Amino acid sequence: MDLLNNYINRFEEYLDLLEYDPTFANLYNPVKYTLENKGKRIRPAIVMLAYDAFGKNIEEVLPAALSIEVFHNFTLLHDDIMDDAPMRRGKDSVFKKYGLNAAILSGDAMLIQSYSYLQKYPNELFKKLMEIVNVNAIKVCEGQQLDMDFETRDDVTISEYITMIELKTAVLIAGGLKMGALIGGASDEQSEHFYQFGKNIGIAFQLQDDILDTYGDKFKVGKQKGGDIIQQKKTYLYLKTVELLEGKAETDFLELYHNDGDDKVAAVTKIFDTVVIKEYAEQVKKAYLDLAYSHLNAIQLNEKSKAQFVDFAKYLVERDY
Amino acid sequence: MDLLNNYINRFEEYLDLLEYDPTFANLYNPVKYTLENKGKRIRPAIVMLAYDAFGKNIEEVLPAALSIEVFHNFTLLHDDIMDDAPMRRGKDSVFKKYGLNAAILSGDAMLIQSYSYLQKYPNELFKKLMEIVNVNAIKVCEGQQLDMDFETRDDVTISEYITMIELKTAVLIAGGLKMGALIGGASDEQSEHFYQFGKNIGIAFQLQDDILDTYGDKFKVGKQKGGDIIQQKKTYLYLKTVELLEGKAETDFLELYHNDGDDKVAAVTKIFDTVVIKEYAEQVKKAYLDLAYSHLNAIQLNEKSKAQFVDFAKYLVERDY
Repeated sequence: MDLLNNYINRFEEYLDLLEYDPTFANLYNPVKYTLENKGKRIRPAIVMLAYDAFGKNIEEVLPAALSIEVFHNFTLLHDDIMDDAPMRRGKDSVFKKYGLNAAILSGDAMLIQSYSYLQKYPNELFKKLMEIVNVNAIKVCEGQQLDMDFETRDDVTISEYITMIELKTAVLIAGGLKMGALIGGASDEQSEHFYQFGKNIGIAFQLQDDILDTYGDKFKVGKQKGGDIIQQKKTYLYLKTVELLEGKAETDFLELYHNDGDDKVAAVTKIFDTVVIKEYAEQVKKAYLDLAYSHLNAIQLNEKSKAQFVDFAKYLVERDY
Repeated sequence: MDLLNNYINRFEEYLDLLEYDPTFANLYNPVKYTLENKGKRIRPAIVMLAYDAFGKNIEEVLPAALSIEVFHNFTLLHDDIMDDAPMRRGKDSVFKKYGLNAAILSGDAMLIQSYSYLQKYPNELFKKLMEIVNVNAIKVCEGQQLDMDFETRDDVTISEYITMIELKTAVLIAGGLKMGALIGGASDEQSEHFYQFGKNIGIAFQLQDDILDTYGDKFKVGKQKGGDIIQQKKTYLYLKTVELLEGKAETDFLELYHNDGDDKVAAVTKIFDTVVIKEYAEQVKKAYLDLAYSHLNAIQLNEKSKAQFVDFAKYLVERDY
């Protein structure tokens, strides 16, 4: 997406200016390694996009963009330990490359740094930004906890699943948009609509991730196809299929999903197809997208700016990687 | 120490009011478990003590006292993982009781909460407090990193060791005093003297810890005597002994210290005694205590208040547990 690429390029330049005290190389090398292994940089880009709808000097928003990207990467360091994940973005995870202690401590340092970067803002704005960060940061932890709880529970509902992805993924996108808007000079009311826009986009974004796991092009997605199925993740696709099936069909599906077997991914996908799960998932995704647009329409924006947010939303929820 | 006990009792009442969302019991139970297993509560008590030298309503300082205690306990959760420590304050460590993932994630939540509790303060003061927290929190991580680095280095100097304990332990005491003073209404200059007072007291406090490991009464200290020796920790006692010994005596000591052997603690203690290491450690401790007092004397305080800080310093560096 060209628009985002401009932001991302500017962000990368800013990131390149970061310096770390070599006395603590073992603490900061994993931080550098993480930030240099570029992800999609969606979060800093959205902070910049929201700022740009109101503000005049993009430099102003870079510390907040950095803060949210460093926070997001902190969560990856610790999540990879919790998930015992050896790979991240095609390279060794920090946990795998530098060991457990480094992944814990460097993650902690990143969380603290993500707060520090916001100090550039004046008192009143700083306090507002910190309140957003604090509220959402604790929600991300709560979402991660639910995600782990779900692994051992067999009564997870779709509603609980949506709550989990809202907490774990969507609130950070929501908070980023709200922060960018506030720094740009948007009113509290406008900023709150950005939050709600982002939250609903974020849920749709995660639903797209669930869809891509089964129906994406593995070369484009860059990870193993059916990874969620192999890990027996209770995704929307899984939960809705269980709801749709009955009797022996349901029992057989549960048996298949929660055991390792040859061609398991193909077999599960076949059942997904039988219940036209992709259609259901697309419908739910669309419902959240519509909710998001209703908040976008409540914000006074010029047509060009509004179109950019729609493009951005489409990019997030229609992407094929 | 009676004075501190009054503060601690008030703090405990405040702590009892904390509530946690039961939806995320697996996230917050380890937090409750940690905070209920009372430590010495030195950090919240010093925030309150510093406040009381200037402020009028002790309620005002409780959120900051809570913030620092929760931050301190976050470091314990993660440090216990890194040190593979099964016990903490005579009970199972969180890592041991709830598992690795819980200790990581609940620790993260505590770090975030420690920031959240400061939101009670008005914009300008909030910003000042956040700057103190951010600067010191990252130093605590850097200190922990140095501590881990030292495990595999054989060229650690005494000066590096002092830097490590300053970062890992002293800056939090320093920051706590500075925060309490600022909230009470002290000037920036006075608050900075409190910081320096606390930093030097903090170094002396850790040196006392080193001394107690070998020369303390194990029943009072409540942990295994000679634990540092068994774990081959490069404490001041060890580093200074290596510096004082020469030739074969030095080689033999290094050999003894870095291997497991029967009666190792007794044998190492005997060599410590030969070089009168306790005297050296007491002297260095006194030097930092004097430095601390020079900063205390630079603060305009009434005699009663000054005497309380001297009592507090003595309590920290002369304690026998």
